[in-house]
Amino acid sequence: MYQRNIRYSKRSDFVIQILQGDLVFTPDQDNMTCYKDGYLIYQNGIIIGVYEELPKEYQDQTVQKYINHLIIPGFNDIHVHGPQWLNCGIGYSRELLEWLNLYTFPLESKFSDRDFAETTYRRFVNALVECGTTRASVFATRHAQATKSLIQLFRKSGLGAYVGKVNMDRNAMEGLEEETQRSIYETEELITWVEDTRDNDLVNYILTPRFVPSTTPELMKGLGNLAETYKLKVQSHLSENHSEINWVRELHPECNDFASVYYEYGLMPKGRTVMAHCVHNTEKEQKLIKDQEVMIAHCAASNSNLTSGMMPLRKYMNEGQKIGLASDVAGGQTLDMRNHIVETIKTAKLYQSIHPQFHAVTFVEAFYLATKGGGSLFGKTGAFEKGYEMDALIIDDSDLTRGMEFDLPERLERFVYVGSSKKIIKRMVRGKEIHPI
Amino acid sequence: MYQRNIRYSKRSDFVIQILQGDLVFTPDQDNMTCYKDGYLIYQNGIIIGVYEELPKEYQDQTVQKYINHLIIPGFNDIHVHGPQWLNCGIGYSRELLEWLNLYTFPLESKFSDRDFAETTYRRFVNALVECGTTRASVFATRHAQATKSLIQLFRKSGLGAYVGKVNMDRNAMEGLEEETQRSIYETEELITWVEDTRDNDLVNYILTPRFVPSTTPELMKGLGNLAETYKLKVQSHLSENHSEINWVRELHPECNDFASVYYEYGLMPKGRTVMAHCVHNTEKEQKLIKDQEVMIAHCAASNSNLTSGMMPLRKYMNEGQKIGLASDVAGGQTLDMRNHIVETIKTAKLYQSIHPQFHAVTFVEAFYLATKGGGSLFGKTGAFEKGYEMDALIIDDSDLTRGMEFDLPERLERFVYVGSSKKIIKRMVRGKEIHPI
Repeated sequence: MYQRNIRYSKRSDFVIQILQGDLVFTPDQDNMTCYKDGYLIYQNGIIIGVYEELPKEYQDQTVQKYINHLIIPGFNDIHVHGPQWLNCGIGYSRELLEWLNLYTFPLESKFSDRDFAETTYRRFVNALVECGTTRASVFATRHAQATKSLIQLFRKSGLGAYVGKVNMDRNAMEGLEEETQRSIYETEELITWVEDTRDNDLVNYILTPRFVPSTTPELMKGLGNLAETYKLKVQSHLSENHSEINWVRELHPECNDFASVYYEYGLMPKGRTVMAHCVHNTEKEQKLIKDQEVMIAHCAASNSNLTSGMMPLRKYMNEGQKIGLASDVAGGQTLDMRNHIVETIKTAKLYQSIHPQFHAVTFVEAFYLATKGGGSLFGKTGAFEKGYEMDALIIDDSDLTRGMEFDLPERLERFVYVGSSKKIIKRMVRGKEIHPI
Repeated sequence: MYQRNIRYSKRSDFVIQILQGDLVFTPDQDNMTCYKDGYLIYQNGIIIGVYEELPKEYQDQTVQKYINHLIIPGFNDIHVHGPQWLNCGIGYSRELLEWLNLYTFPLESKFSDRDFAETTYRRFVNALVECGTTRASVFATRHAQATKSLIQLFRKSGLGAYVGKVNMDRNAMEGLEEETQRSIYETEELITWVEDTRDNDLVNYILTPRFVPSTTPELMKGLGNLAETYKLKVQSHLSENHSEINWVRELHPECNDFASVYYEYGLMPKGRTVMAHCVHNTEKEQKLIKDQEVMIAHCAASNSNLTSGMMPLRKYMNEGQKIGLASDVAGGQTLDMRNHIVETIKTAKLYQSIHPQFHAVTFVEAFYLATKGGGSLFGKTGAFEKGYEMDALIIDDSDLTRGMEFDLPERLERFVYVGSSKKIIKRMVRGKEIHPI
C-alpha cells in the first residue's frame, strides 16, 4: 500500500527535511531517548534518523530550528467514540449498562441527522488535532452516512485513523437497533466505499461490533466473514464491568467466556484485533488474547469514571501482552492523551498500594504505551526511528520551566502532568503539518 | 474580629449588590441547590440570600446580569505548599520520604533567597487566583522573611488564607534544618507581626510543624505552647505513607501512634487542627481526631502520585469526620480544585471497586467537600447562604454546552470535568473582585 502511494507523491515530498530541537521518545518501554538540540531527519513522511550532531551529508540542507522546544512523537488513541465527545464529563454516577442507556444511546441516536453528525464530527476531529492525537481508532455510530462524513473529515484533516460504523442489532433503544442483514450489507458497502475513494492509507475501515450484548450471533458471524474476506481489523469491548460480563454469560452459554464469544464468531482475527478495557479478564481469556495477538486498549480514565475497576496493567505487561492507551471518550472525560498517561500511572500506583507485587508503571512506560505501544496498531508510528512515520508534536514549554532547571525527561513530565495542549505549536502526521479543518 | 473590620469598611461596601445568573451550590453533602436566572444578593461581602424571583424590597436596585453564566462558590484548598508549586509534575516515581529529600527540600532551600521567594510566591498566588481558589491553607518554607512576603502577597491579592512558616529542626538537609529555639522565636515573632500589620481578618497565621519526623519534642512543645497562648490553628501531615508511619513509631515509642504524637505535644487543639492525608489512620487515631474535631485534608491526587494509597473517604464520612479537599501541591500536580474534585471521585470509585460496602462519593458530595466542606476552616464560606461570605466564581461555559441541552447540575459537572479555569470570568472574595497581582 505504501509503495503505491509514493508514486503519487508530490515532488516536494522527496526533499529531505531536518528539524532541530529537544527530541524525546521511547524506543522501548524501559528507555527514553533524549537529544538536546538534536536533529530529526525525514523524507517523504518517513524518518531517516535522529542525530546528536548533523551528519556531514546533510550539512548543505536547510534546518528548521526549534531551539528549546520539545519535539515528541504524536499521541495514539486506540479506542475512542467520536459521537460521544459531547457527553464528556456527565453521567458518571452510573455504571456501564445504565450509562449506555441513559446517556450514550440517546446521544448516538441523534447521528441519524447528517447535519448534526457533520457538525459534531468536525468539532471532534478538530479536538483531536488540538490535543496532539495524531492517530486514533474510532467508533462512529450505527449510521452509515454519518460514518462516511467522519471518514471524509479524517481524510481532510490529515490525521491517521481507523474508523468503523458501529454494528448493533439487539438490546439497544428504538431507532438505534439495526436489522441484522442490513447492518452487514451497509458495513460491506462502507468497506468498499473506503477502498474506492481513498487517496492514501492514512484512514482505514475497522470492523466495529459494539460489544457482545449488542450483536446477535448472526450479525457476529456476518461480520466475522467480512473480517476474513477483506482481512480487516476488528475493534470491540471486553470484560469492562461485572454486570456486563454476567450478561454475556447468560446470552452465550455455548461459549467458555466473554473473549471466546468474539473468537468463536470470527471476531478476534490474529494480530488484527483491538479490545478495550480487559479489566476483569480471566487467565483463560488472557491466554486467548495473547495467542490471538490482541491489542489491549487500556482505558484508565473510563474505568474509574464508570466504576469498572482497575485493570492489572503490570500483570498484563509481564505476560507480554500488546497494550496501548485510549481515551475511551466519553467513558473517559477527555481526548487529551496527556491526561490518560497520568491516569494510567495514578491508577497503577493505587493498584500497587493494594497489590505490592505489581509495581506501578513508570512515566517512561506510560509514555511508551501512549506513543509507540499503541502506535503499532497503525504501522510504524510513535517513535523517532529509521523507517517510522514522521508523526510529531513541537511544544513550546518555556513557561513551564521558568525559574527552574529541568532536564529533558523532567520537561516532558511537566508538559504531560501540568502543561496544556495550547503549548503544542505544531502537529505533524507523516511529515505533513496538521491544522483544524 | 469581623465586627472590628466593619468599622473600617468603605461606604461603597454597604451598597446592596445583586447578581443574576445560574446559581449552583451545595448547602449540604446530599443536595445541590440550583437557580436558573436566580438572584444572589449580598452586602458588605456577606450574603443576604438567593432567590428565584427578585424580592420586592430590592426591585429598585441595580442587577448585574450574568445570564447563562454559572455562578458558584469559590474553591477552598485546605492544604497546599506554596514553594513547591514549581515542582508540580516531576519526581512522582519516588515515594514520600525519597521525594522530600530529592525534590522538595532542595527546592525549599532556595527560599532563603528573598527575591526568588518573592517572584515565585507572586506566581503561586496568581496561579491560585487563576484557577478559582478563593481560600487556601498554605505551608510556606522554614524561612520567616519569605513567609512574610507570602503573607503580604496574599493580603495584596484579596484572597483568604491561612499561612504558616514551616517548623523543622531535625532530619532535614543542611541549610534547611532549624535551630530549635530560633524556630520557636521566629514563629512567635511572625505571629505578632501578622496581628500588628493586619487590615482585616482574611489572612491569618497557622502553626505549621512540617510533620513529626521533622520536629523534635522540644520544638513540638514550644509550638504547642504558642497554639495555646495565641489560640492558633495548627496544620500538619498524618499517616500518609507506611515508611513514614514506621519512622514515627521508631522516633516516638512513648506515644500510642502517629496522631497521638501531635496530641501529646499540644499540636492537636480541639476544633483548630487540619491534618493532611490520614490515608492509613487506625481506628484509635480516627477516634482521637474525631474527638479533637480535626479537619481532614483529603489529597487524592497526591496520594496516587506518591503511591501513598487510597484514603477510605466514605468510611470517614460515615464516622462524621470533618473533611475538605486539598491540592497538596506539589504532591498533587495542580492547584486546580476542579481536578481534585474529579480525582476524589475517581479514587473513591476505584476504592469502591475493591470495597463495595463503601460507595464512592457522588459529584454533589465531592463538590460540597471542595466548597462548603473545607470552607468551614475559614468561617462561613463555600455556600450561597444567608450570613455566608460572598466568595464566588462567575463562569462562561457557553462553549461547553454548544450542541446540547444540559441542565444546571450537568453544566457544573461539565465545567469541573472538562472545562478550564479560563472559563472563569470573575472571581470574588468577601464580595470584592480578585485579580492577579
